[in-house]
Amino acid sequence: MTQSRTVELEGHLIDSGTMQRCFGAVMDLGGSFDVERFDVGKHETEESYCRLAVSADDPETLRAILHELHQNGAVLEDPSDVELVRAPADKVVPPNFYSTTNHPTEVLYDGEWIDVEGIEMDCALVVEPGPAADAGEGDRADASDAGNDGAARARTKTLSAVEAGDLIATDQSGIRVNPPERPRSGGGAFGFMQGGVSAERPSESTIREVAAELRAVEADGGTVMVVAGPAVIHSGAGDALADLVAAGYVDALSAGNGFATHDLERSIYGTSLGMDVETLEHPRKGHKHHIWTISEIIRAGGIEAAVEDGVVTEGVMYECVENGVDTVLAGSIRDDGPLPDTITDAVEAQDAIREQARDADIVLMLATLLHSVAVGNCLPSTTKTVCVDINPATVTQLLDRGSAQAVGMVTDIGTFVPTLAEYVLEGEEGGGAETGGDESAGDGSGGSAEGDA
Amino acid sequence: MTQSRTVELEGHLIDSGTMQRCFGAVMDLGGSFDVERFDVGKHETEESYCRLAVSADDPETLRAILHELHQNGAVLEDPSDVELVRAPADKVVPPNFYSTTNHPTEVLYDGEWIDVEGIEMDCALVVEPGPAADAGEGDRADASDAGNDGAARARTKTLSAVEAGDLIATDQSGIRVNPPERPRSGGGAFGFMQGGVSAERPSESTIREVAAELRAVEADGGTVMVVAGPAVIHSGAGDALADLVAAGYVDALSAGNGFATHDLERSIYGTSLGMDVETLEHPRKGHKHHIWTISEIIRAGGIEAAVEDGVVTEGVMYECVENGVDTVLAGSIRDDGPLPDTITDAVEAQDAIREQARDADIVLMLATLLHSVAVGNCLPSTTKTVCVDINPATVTQLLDRGSAQAVGMVTDIGTFVPTLAEYVLEGEEGGGAETGGDESAGDGSGGSAEGDA
Amino acid sequence: MTQSRTVELEGHLIDSGTMQRCFGAVMDLGGSFDVERFDVGKHETEESYCRLAVSADDPETLRAILHELHQNGAVLEDPSDVELVRAPADKVVPPNFYSTTNHPTEVLYDGEWIDVEGIEMDCALVVEPGPAADAGEGDRADASDAGNDGAARARTKTLSAVEAGDLIATDQSGIRVNPPERPRSGGGAFGFMQGGVSAERPSESTIREVAAELRAVEADGGTVMVVAGPAVIHSGAGDALADLVAAGYVDALSAGNGFATHDLERSIYGTSLGMDVETLEHPRKGHKHHIWTISEIIRAGGIEAAVEDGVVTEGVMYECVENGVDTVLAGSIRDDGPLPDTITDAVEAQDAIREQARDADIVLMLATLLHSVAVGNCLPSTTKTVCVDINPATVTQLLDRGSAQAVGMVTDIGTFVPTLAEYVLEGEEGGGAETGGDESAGDGSGGSAEGDA
Amino acid sequence: MTQSRTVELEGHLIDSGTMQRCFGAVMDLGGSFDVERFDVGKHETEESYCRLAVSADDPETLRAILHELHQNGAVLEDPSDVELVRAPADKVVPPNFYSTTNHPTEVLYDGEWIDVEGIEMDCALVVEPGPAADAGEGDRADASDAGNDGAARARTKTLSAVEAGDLIATDQSGIRVNPPERPRSGGGAFGFMQGGVSAERPSESTIREVAAELRAVEADGGTVMVVAGPAVIHSGAGDALADLVAAGYVDALSAGNGFATHDLERSIYGTSLGMDVETLEHPRKGHKHHIWTISEIIRAGGIEAAVEDGVVTEGVMYECVENGVDTVLAGSIRDDGPLPDTITDAVEAQDAIREQARDADIVLMLATLLHSVAVGNCLPSTTKTVCVDINPATVTQLLDRGSAQAVGMVTDIGTFVPTLAEYVLEGEEGGGAETGGDESAGDGSGGSAEGDA
Repeated sequence: MTQSRTVELEGHLIDSGTMQRCFGAVMDLGGSFDVERFDVGKHETEESYCRLAVSADDPETLRAILHELHQNGAVLEDPSDVELVRAPADKVVPPNFYSTTNHPTEVLYDGEWIDVEGIEMDCALVVEPGPAADAGEGDRADASDAGNDGAARARTKTLSAVEAGDLIATDQSGIRVNPPERPRSGGGAFGFMQGGVSAERPSESTIREVAAELRAVEADGGTVMVVAGPAVIHSGAGDALADLVAAGYVDALSAGNGFATHDLERSIYGTSLGMDVETLEHPRKGHKHHIWTISEIIRAGGIEAAVEDGVVTEGVMYECVENGVDTVLAGSIRDDGPLPDTITDAVEAQDAIREQARDADIVLMLATLLHSVAVGNCLPSTTKTVCVDINPATVTQLLDRGSAQAVGMVTDIGTFVPTLAEYVLEGEEGGGAETGGDESAGDGSGGSAEGDA
Repeated sequence: MTQSRTVELEGHLIDSGTMQRCFGAVMDLGGSFDVERFDVGKHETEESYCRLAVSADDPETLRAILHELHQNGAVLEDPSDVELVRAPADKVVPPNFYSTTNHPTEVLYDGEWIDVEGIEMDCALVVEPGPAADAGEGDRADASDAGNDGAARARTKTLSAVEAGDLIATDQSGIRVNPPERPRSGGGAFGFMQGGVSAERPSESTIREVAAELRAVEADGGTVMVVAGPAVIHSGAGDALADLVAAGYVDALSAGNGFATHDLERSIYGTSLGMDVETLEHPRKGHKHHIWTISEIIRAGGIEAAVEDGVVTEGVMYECVENGVDTVLAGSIRDDGPLPDTITDAVEAQDAIREQARDADIVLMLATLLHSVAVGNCLPSTTKTVCVDINPATVTQLLDRGSAQAVGMVTDIGTFVPTLAEYVLEGEEGGGAETGGDESAGDGSGGSAEGDA
Repeated sequence: MTQSRTVELEGHLIDSGTMQRCFGAVMDLGGSFDVERFDVGKHETEESYCRLAVSADDPETLRAILHELHQNGAVLEDPSDVELVRAPADKVVPPNFYSTTNHPTEVLYDGEWIDVEGIEMDCALVVEPGPAADAGEGDRADASDAGNDGAARARTKTLSAVEAGDLIATDQSGIRVNPPERPRSGGGAFGFMQGGVSAERPSESTIREVAAELRAVEADGGTVMVVAGPAVIHSGAGDALADLVAAGYVDALSAGNGFATHDLERSIYGTSLGMDVETLEHPRKGHKHHIWTISEIIRAGGIEAAVEDGVVTEGVMYECVENGVDTVLAGSIRDDGPLPDTITDAVEAQDAIREQARDADIVLMLATLLHSVAVGNCLPSTTKTVCVDINPATVTQLLDRGSAQAVGMVTDIGTFVPTLAEYVLEGEEGGGAETGGDESAGDGSGGSAEGDA
Repeated sequence: MTQSRTVELEGHLIDSGTMQRCFGAVMDLGGSFDVERFDVGKHETEESYCRLAVSADDPETLRAILHELHQNGAVLEDPSDVELVRAPADKVVPPNFYSTTNHPTEVLYDGEWIDVEGIEMDCALVVEPGPAADAGEGDRADASDAGNDGAARARTKTLSAVEAGDLIATDQSGIRVNPPERPRSGGGAFGFMQGGVSAERPSESTIREVAAELRAVEADGGTVMVVAGPAVIHSGAGDALADLVAAGYVDALSAGNGFATHDLERSIYGTSLGMDVETLEHPRKGHKHHIWTISEIIRAGGIEAAVEDGVVTEGVMYECVENGVDTVLAGSIRDDGPLPDTITDAVEAQDAIREQARDADIVLMLATLLHSVAVGNCLPSTTKTVCVDINPATVTQLLDRGSAQAVGMVTDIGTFVPTLAEYVLEGEEGGGAETGGDESAGDGSGGSAEGDA
């Protein structure tokens, strides 16, 4: 028997692709639709409105369709309050619990739409009624701590953070997501849904745009987060990244034991995995420097202690310590050592990464799939993200999970970071990058070289 | 001063993404729009209609915007006849000549919309008035030869085929393109704008769908065209492809000197580039068999002669000769020899490929970038295409030029072709794959077997 | 002042490349050599002997050269006992400690060469004197437990396992490594130093060789270890892997939370990341099945409990539980959940992986970089290893750390595993694969072979 | 019955890997050997000598083994004159003709070893007796023209260049090849058999070495040949390459119709494939500029004419015309147009490329597989070659055919060329790169380390 429901959508529905995805979802899943009303925004600045009746042959199909439409921002006509069920035990959620997207989300609670805090995909959505409604529960101090005098709050929780008794949203009624819309002004590297990754985009120009964005974020007092893999060091780009840290363009560093060790090895022995990255000499197996470096840091009692003791005197980790950069080293099963600073428990490390990610205004992901995915998992779709890797598959995989502002670049990290640092730091000394009008890196010959003195 | 024009669009504008692309183009290029009318198709089977006034600050911007809208199917309100200018010399087109897309296209000539024949991208569009209108030109016999008693015709011509005096379309007024629309029934490998290429799609299931499509095309008397690179032979898939040819599932083969030589080497010496592809033995440099093979075929006077003389007794080329498959070997600058059958002139080879491509109902592109691009250049966007390569960059590059029915698979050609052949040929013998209970792929879960009968 | 030392080498020095590497190391590092004696093996079965005086301008260069020669199997003439220093604290090794290779290694202790147990690269080398020599230390019971009545033992320890007081080898005198030598019979997939990775090797033939090797290992009562990434499930190869487990061809499984979750999702919901891997339908974002699956397993109390409860009824994890396969799920920072079975601490997980790796006779690494590197880190260079990935960079990275018996295949895991299962299981039913002489994949099952006649 | 032959080898047999390959070949092919004499070079500057008796069970195996040994430089004891057979017809060689390697080669003719000219792989080897011996053949003027008064000459001919009556070498007796040996001084980018390609090598340092090499070749009056693909332009590196041409660092350019068209489009329209490479704007399909560019050049009558007419005023092609760079544009089946300057016949284009390749002292292959392979086919193994591509598979494929001096870099051409130009041109202005002032990466040596304090 045909099942039917009516949903509503609002926003820049056409140019953001929302309607295309919604109509497509209905057809792909075997349903049909009836456009009851469609007010198309007359101009690029005017929003559209659509009321759509959707039907399917059975309740299961209808549910699948409504799920898709929901994720694209549709809400049921006359929505009712979110359905909440208490978690029966720690880490255990009720069946049919609502799993979050990474888009800004609201829940209808007590007749009011309230924002979900800490939005992040694949989490449970927990509603915390205000103290008034929830007077008996003395353990829920945080809502009132935050000073929102009695108002209910909603936030995400990973499964492992769920506690017995949490009020968990189930189904999807009373929940509204707001997928990113196409910005009204087009163009630039940070456009909308760059979709696809190409190695044939103009590399130097794109890097210049990223540099401008970094500078803009810092100028606004924003937070730049760098996610870096070991290849940054192997490929000789460590000095350039250290320069960016020293100049204050990195507020948070999220990396792993390998990245830190290779960087520290450079400082202690002048090599990375046993190879002198300046002269290319001794690129040999049996790179005892690597494991010796870890041993030195263990002996010193950690990276900060090693910097204080003068064991480590330069490099990315050194600059992070000296400049008070918020640093998280997350452990992995391929680590040697590990360094004492490495958080070996994955859940604990995720929590540390989550703290960093929520504060970030722009995230640079440099040549690491593992750490980039881990950070990406914690980001809302509204955070600007740049993914750089020489392997197109890595960039594709990251963008697929992606935020609308994500930029993917398939390029060599060993030339990307130095070129980026050049543009960022040049800009600093009088806006050379912006005013010079020189396009190819090499501008070097003359102006910028002098500016470096 | 603000410039403005009004265009119209019709079709499944929303779910095919047409409106999204049009609105996006206007904004990206810095113009603005006014939706004068928008009738949204109420149901999935109903078309939409949109009348859009577009404006920009200067004529050049407006022209760029209109060009984008045109390529998405928009036509000017009250269109006028196509503007034709005679080619001043062979191979020379008038400035501002119209360069074709690969979508079905019509021109408004003498007040009537006529279809453009041989549609293919990046060509000139030539109108041939009927004999009545063009009585003085005795050299234009082909229109009347074709028996269309006096009617005008329009067709594409590559630049190198343009002859002095040809009536070449310029600008874009009076020209209408019809980009592919989303099929009403979704799903399956041959869906709409699969967009993106993933190595994580279920390989065996996708191959089964391609096999079903091949069988369906052959059952309808259609034409299957295979474009094959040397890796097909190196990877040991030559036997499977030869089986498909022998069983009549290949109507046209488009390849190069390298593919043919490797295949012939297998027949004559049992090796491919000096390596025995069965036993893995002797994978050595100094593969004199390769150049000896070419020399043997030259001595015989060509591949067909070599088959007749018994020099070549098996393999893909052998089966192509035996089964009368339309074969084109196009030369390239990396060829050894070449074989006498290889067309060494690129323009001549393109013409031969063009003949094949226009007849094809489905094209399988197997592990060759060069030949796939060459064939793809000649295909209208309506021809079903499957691109298979282990390198995602190759598949992406091919799909980017792509037709809406293009399917990309990132997989190993050495297992793809044997598995495809297995599904195609098993299907032939009564659905072996479905009923056999074999563990790889086909297990089929019942349903599909019934559908195959 | 010129420094000089004399070393000796023995074995198949020329055809294994040992002498080439040694001479090269001396020259690359700026030293010079004097061949004092070189007895070349007269026949392929006769070993060679070389005594080489090496000199350099300064002690540091000489030390670097000797380090390289050491790693290629050279020992100082008249070697002295290994130099041992006690670890000053837990996890802290003495400066200049000896870092192991992954080759079989011996130490000269008390005038006798004793084998190092648990060989693995980048570890400390700990000598445990026998009870006689070590009478006062009651806490060192394990040597005598092992029943080696008083004899000293030597074994590897990762840095994090080092305990205060351990006798740690330093420098490299008194230590001899035995790099793998070229097997006397050449050829086959498991040849010597296949070096390099090519996507153009004959896929089906190579898979057949791997299948034969798997069957041989099982026939000998050996241990087959599978390391699997999530792409095995996404690409539709889960059924084939489950079949191999069910048939007893997998003794140990090393994977991550993602692999297990995707596999369990298939069993519970019939999808992988929300996509039906049979029909290709619903390949959509918002794959709530993934996180629901984790939640179901948490609710059941773990995978084994979920199998017992009938929540999970098929798939790789199901078969592993049913067949008592030794399974390790190692956590990572990109995990959702995680499942209760996942070991979230990296060091703990490494220890579990190490146990598995040491027992393995052959390791299949399927489409996972992280877990493959983690396992590879624990393997001696003598363990046969097959690395399969569609990304050549992954395969190259794994082989670079590699053992001499490592085989790399750049192919689609979605067709590799089904084809492998077919060959392994066919062989079981009467040796079809070996006797049939059929070359292209599946023809195996009779039908199409007849059609070939 | 056992067959046996004795061969001799001379040179740096061990450190160049010659003996390893020879012993390996014998064993792989199932033969056995008896080392009759082996004089090992005592020091790194002393050559070795080996006399080896090789035996096999049948003549065919022995022949295969001897072929391998021959290619590694072995000659039969007591070699006899080369065996010559006349070509029976144009393009037809005798059976069992000798197919050349790309190593320097000599033939024993009339009791004297003479060098083979124009060495290149996969060719026939033609001996031209001197006028004295060949008095009757008035058409063989070139030997005497070259002033070698009567001496015989030997040279390579491709199959398609063979003429009836040519004296073609058959078998391999009387032919000696000289594979490259390991240079006595190791290290640096242009080391010996870099073997393998890694994306993790330090990018900026390697580029600096290539820049130094380019400058050295030009300083010696040598010839720099650049092979460039369209991605050089798309990725925004065109300006930097044009700068190198303008500064005289490019003597020959070998490219295709696509490269030239994209470069010319930039000059005429400021775009590449319709995208403004400075601003990233308008990266759209329907890039009519591309085909319009071709049309403009056709109208002008060719690139040189277009430069003279002021149609083209900048870019790589412009600088090539202005600086008299030897330019070859080779056609391919994927070309649009083509430009009038494009050589459409593959054999003719190969001949033009061959001329360029033979003169080159160093070849830079930039982001093109097709043209790089074509050029590589014509190069002797002694020509220095640098292959740069973002796709490791491309670099691997090129190095596999490779010369011993080949360097592979997996990097982004869009940053490689600008960085290279910067280093090359900076060096010009007083050795800036060496002395400090450069802002990007590697400045390393000294300066920046101090500056960091």
